[in-house]
Amino acid sequence: MQDEPIMDVAHLGHLEVLTPKPEESLRFFVDVMGMTESGRHGDSVYLRCWDDYERYSLQLTGSHTSGLGHAALRARSPQALQRRVAALEQSGLGIGWHEGELGHGPAYRFHDPDGHVFEIYYETEWYKAPEDKRPALKNQAQRYPARGVNVRRLDHFNNLAADIKANREFFQKYLGLRLTEQIVLDDGTEAGMWLTATNKSYDFAYTREAHGVKGRFHHITFALDSREAILQAADIFLEHGVFIETGPHKHAVQQTFFLYVYEPGGNRVEVANAGARLVLAPDWKPIRWTEEERKKGQAWGLKTIESFHTHGSPPLPPGFGDEEKVAGQDDLAEKGIAS
Amino acid sequence: MQDEPIMDVAHLGHLEVLTPKPEESLRFFVDVMGMTESGRHGDSVYLRCWDDYERYSLQLTGSHTSGLGHAALRARSPQALQRRVAALEQSGLGIGWHEGELGHGPAYRFHDPDGHVFEIYYETEWYKAPEDKRPALKNQAQRYPARGVNVRRLDHFNNLAADIKANREFFQKYLGLRLTEQIVLDDGTEAGMWLTATNKSYDFAYTREAHGVKGRFHHITFALDSREAILQAADIFLEHGVFIETGPHKHAVQQTFFLYVYEPGGNRVEVANAGARLVLAPDWKPIRWTEEERKKGQAWGLKTIESFHTHGSPPLPPGFGDEEKVAGQDDLAEKGIAS
Amino acid sequence: MQDEPIMDVAHLGHLEVLTPKPEESLRFFVDVMGMTESGRHGDSVYLRCWDDYERYSLQLTGSHTSGLGHAALRARSPQALQRRVAALEQSGLGIGWHEGELGHGPAYRFHDPDGHVFEIYYETEWYKAPEDKRPALKNQAQRYPARGVNVRRLDHFNNLAADIKANREFFQKYLGLRLTEQIVLDDGTEAGMWLTATNKSYDFAYTREAHGVKGRFHHITFALDSREAILQAADIFLEHGVFIETGPHKHAVQQTFFLYVYEPGGNRVEVANAGARLVLAPDWKPIRWTEEERKKGQAWGLKTIESFHTHGSPPLPPGFGDEEKVAGQDDLAEKGIAS
Amino acid sequence: MQDEPIMDVAHLGHLEVLTPKPEESLRFFVDVMGMTESGRHGDSVYLRCWDDYERYSLQLTGSHTSGLGHAALRARSPQALQRRVAALEQSGLGIGWHEGELGHGPAYRFHDPDGHVFEIYYETEWYKAPEDKRPALKNQAQRYPARGVNVRRLDHFNNLAADIKANREFFQKYLGLRLTEQIVLDDGTEAGMWLTATNKSYDFAYTREAHGVKGRFHHITFALDSREAILQAADIFLEHGVFIETGPHKHAVQQTFFLYVYEPGGNRVEVANAGARLVLAPDWKPIRWTEEERKKGQAWGLKTIESFHTHGSPPLPPGFGDEEKVAGQDDLAEKGIAS
Repeated sequence: MQDEPIMDVAHLGHLEVLTPKPEESLRFFVDVMGMTESGRHGDSVYLRCWDDYERYSLQLTGSHTSGLGHAALRARSPQALQRRVAALEQSGLGIGWHEGELGHGPAYRFHDPDGHVFEIYYETEWYKAPEDKRPALKNQAQRYPARGVNVRRLDHFNNLAADIKANREFFQKYLGLRLTEQIVLDDGTEAGMWLTATNKSYDFAYTREAHGVKGRFHHITFALDSREAILQAADIFLEHGVFIETGPHKHAVQQTFFLYVYEPGGNRVEVANAGARLVLAPDWKPIRWTEEERKKGQAWGLKTIESFHTHGSPPLPPGFGDEEKVAGQDDLAEKGIAS
Repeated sequence: MQDEPIMDVAHLGHLEVLTPKPEESLRFFVDVMGMTESGRHGDSVYLRCWDDYERYSLQLTGSHTSGLGHAALRARSPQALQRRVAALEQSGLGIGWHEGELGHGPAYRFHDPDGHVFEIYYETEWYKAPEDKRPALKNQAQRYPARGVNVRRLDHFNNLAADIKANREFFQKYLGLRLTEQIVLDDGTEAGMWLTATNKSYDFAYTREAHGVKGRFHHITFALDSREAILQAADIFLEHGVFIETGPHKHAVQQTFFLYVYEPGGNRVEVANAGARLVLAPDWKPIRWTEEERKKGQAWGLKTIESFHTHGSPPLPPGFGDEEKVAGQDDLAEKGIAS
Repeated sequence: MQDEPIMDVAHLGHLEVLTPKPEESLRFFVDVMGMTESGRHGDSVYLRCWDDYERYSLQLTGSHTSGLGHAALRARSPQALQRRVAALEQSGLGIGWHEGELGHGPAYRFHDPDGHVFEIYYETEWYKAPEDKRPALKNQAQRYPARGVNVRRLDHFNNLAADIKANREFFQKYLGLRLTEQIVLDDGTEAGMWLTATNKSYDFAYTREAHGVKGRFHHITFALDSREAILQAADIFLEHGVFIETGPHKHAVQQTFFLYVYEPGGNRVEVANAGARLVLAPDWKPIRWTEEERKKGQAWGLKTIESFHTHGSPPLPPGFGDEEKVAGQDDLAEKGIAS
Repeated sequence: MQDEPIMDVAHLGHLEVLTPKPEESLRFFVDVMGMTESGRHGDSVYLRCWDDYERYSLQLTGSHTSGLGHAALRARSPQALQRRVAALEQSGLGIGWHEGELGHGPAYRFHDPDGHVFEIYYETEWYKAPEDKRPALKNQAQRYPARGVNVRRLDHFNNLAADIKANREFFQKYLGLRLTEQIVLDDGTEAGMWLTATNKSYDFAYTREAHGVKGRFHHITFALDSREAILQAADIFLEHGVFIETGPHKHAVQQTFFLYVYEPGGNRVEVANAGARLVLAPDWKPIRWTEEERKKGQAWGLKTIESFHTHGSPPLPPGFGDEEKVAGQDDLAEKGIAS
């Protein structure tokens, strides 16, 4: 009889995103995305979507550059947190406990094999809406803002990594996350993977970094209620002069309806909708996409654009020809690695 | 430290629905709802939605009357199945193992306190689409039919029961299901409850049966991708002369966008969409609706219609004034018990 | 050979709506409906939707009561204006030229047979968006506001009248408007009519006033882009505590998807969408609805609610039992007169 | 005082489209597009959308090649038809009366300056739905089919022409059509124009043919009710293996939401939705797009794909390098001529 699935991670809790233009990034997330500020501390402003049950889902931190500060996972129970910490301590990638963060209890921090910082915590602060943000229906965290894009909740994120397989195995072994889809090239190496802790078909993804630079971030994604809401978002981005990188269109991988823009700090931001798609099977058989299949582009034939393989945050260090073509990268683009 | 949540039930697998008009009910589910036949055995026709990963989600069984044959839950693992069976055997409501069913392995059958038949199983048959139903994208079970309402997947169901609290406690204790919302009347009795095994905010619901008759069924619900798809469904039901009981509108409870019709056999059928709403919190605090709150009707003010409190399947036995007003029932209607 | 159609009226230009609560009404139209103020004069604030090409489509005027100030039609050409004025002068219902109004040139005012004030004009001021309201696409009048309901343009309005037939004949004969649908009761009297000057299936409607009081207003309607946008509007009205009278649902008459609310001044406001429905036939044969057909309620079975037959603006004078049941009115409700 | 607008053309009536693969094209329009056959004569099958009031809107004719057979406009009245015929006879491009066509009365045929065949007629046959296609609502021509893409009505078409200005002036002068948008290159030549007879912002468009070949056809467009319906269509085309050329996306020109595919005979087919956008102004000021503006691509940044400038029907004659790059054509692509 096979091992039972590890159910210790409940869901993605929040992301800390770095920005070299904190004021402009804040205006983007509040005015254009429709998020609500729910706290400030140090260089960070804490932001939330109207349906996030926790105090915040985005920690926006002023910094000298862009990229991912850290990603936070909420454990299913105090016991689950203890089990994962014990496992992570054996992984050799543990960092240690981190306390005193706004909005949640003690968090155990660790690196993934690519060097991104993660944390896992259990205790959390449920959002209490002030009078002017109290919703009409009591099963909703906050009043629908009716401002800008009105993002509903944090959905997932995407990291870049040099070694996809190593990161996949790390999250499967030490966190119990489940692989739903992946890209495996003709040479047998892995170029992308989608992992989940929930019934969503992914809570985060990793795709191959073309230059071998570690710790880079690809995008953060917020969920909207319908494909029509994403089309409305496209109109709103257009009106605000926000750079639309690609979309709206439908991913072949995971079939999500997507739209990618760049926020003022240079981080890629996605709004997406999965329809009623859920992965309910506890023994889901991962979908493996081949090079040939990925070359077909997105679901309805849109070609994956070049920058999707090259733009990440922070920008590449000097000498790597940031955001420009580098050896090997055309290859990835041609092979359609990105989702 | 509190007990850890039981994660042994993976999801709702299928429902067996009885119909006294098997041919007409089959035409309804295939031609109007857009389901696909995937098996026949005895008096049953097995039907599936295009996104169901298992062979079927609806077993439609010709019978002398309407109602629920049985409801089936899939366990998360073989071990999880064993644990639940052990627990159920102690509940005093176990029936025993049931083998040889089409599409899945051994199932342990049991009653809920109201007498409805349930089963739990682990082994299952994944749907293999024949050539003419093969989808364009390999991460999809079956080609989108583009016929009628095009239901995506089985979403949930609703039973009627005399004692809501007894049933709630049974499913929480023996199956580990989680309560997300409930209705508690001013006299302290419970009138409705919504339970989940997944990140959907409910996999099934129970509402109080007005006449004290046991084992009755309220509705089966299929998920569509958007609220617009439900409006399109309303147009399709109208064109096919299908009786629309109420909707489309938005529930206050659970905020689902809904539409209720009766299939030819007399069972109530719902198509629904929850937007991007998910219950991600592992420690979700159940929402408790009061009589006063429920009297407000649905989210946008639609009054809950009378038949929602009286119509169930099978029809009431003689002497109960089937589908007509009975003592006490007006009360329930007035109190807005139904979601 | 039959007479040629008169094409002299181009479209509905704007409405003047009276409100006894000018500040609250203004906040409703700006904050909730998402309209933009484009002028002030005397007791009036002028408001526009983002896709209105003229300076404004709503003149909101502080007054001792609610109701319609006047309705304005734009003529197709200077010659067309002259022809219509000549005809109106022979109708016996002409009032005379009215000059100096904000946003358009000389207007000829007249009464309909029920006493509502209308005007027809040709010269108009095209909206010039200030820098902060300039749209990204040059074929659009104003930036999409992404605020509240975001109404796109004035669509139509509905007056109440004692004698539907007299009003229908007046607009057909003197203005050349075309009848697309009507309600004719079993006794042969007319109870509702829908007239158009465009390819929209109606630019305004008249339904029978139940008490015989003249000059009353039923509602003003703004167009949104999709049915989903109307469902979003319902959520926004709910969050703002705006009273939703009925809907969202689909009219059987004209098949429009509708949602009715009351603005703070007591006037009924609708947001609606017709899908891609247009009346293109130049010789459209009017649809005649019978009492029996109207008793079926709306398209998907929603019963027309009582207040739809009784609530109008201004409120009924003393003695008429404002907004309450009066003799004869139950009859109209029962016959399902309203759309 | 300026001349009054000519209102003699009521709307686009139907298109005759040629196909070298009549059986496969017919299956495409019936099974995938969801159209209904409403007649056969000679090599033609007549097809209709569920909301077309006339008997048909598409005459699909088996032929040795693809392209436009003829385009038909319905006059507003018998008198209007006489006036237009008188004008066309003076244009030097009249062909003469054509009688005995299925579904409508005498039609006067003429060429546009590029050699495409047009006709104008007044008498027409209103569609009478047989019992099994009778709609639930009497203000609708035919039952909604709930099959495939479910196109609602013929919306517009697009011809290619060598001399855009000559064609524009012809339709403005002899038919009274109104220009709503156009593309004017830096050298002053016109590269695209959008004309309307209705409140739709265009009933047909012309874009420059890159090779100087006359009489070619660019696409036929059907209207759907919402952008979501177009996204659903994309999924259906994907499942049926229909080649998606580009989209879904939003045009900058006219702001229409579009999706282009090729039907089996090689003709380009579009499904589109304009939201609630209408041109109501009788004195609409044409929008003039420059080369620089068109180089920005579509509304949300999608680049206009190469084949949009090169693929037309019928294919180019030998020696013109059909569907391949030819001198001058890269230029047009680069300048983003197409909408």
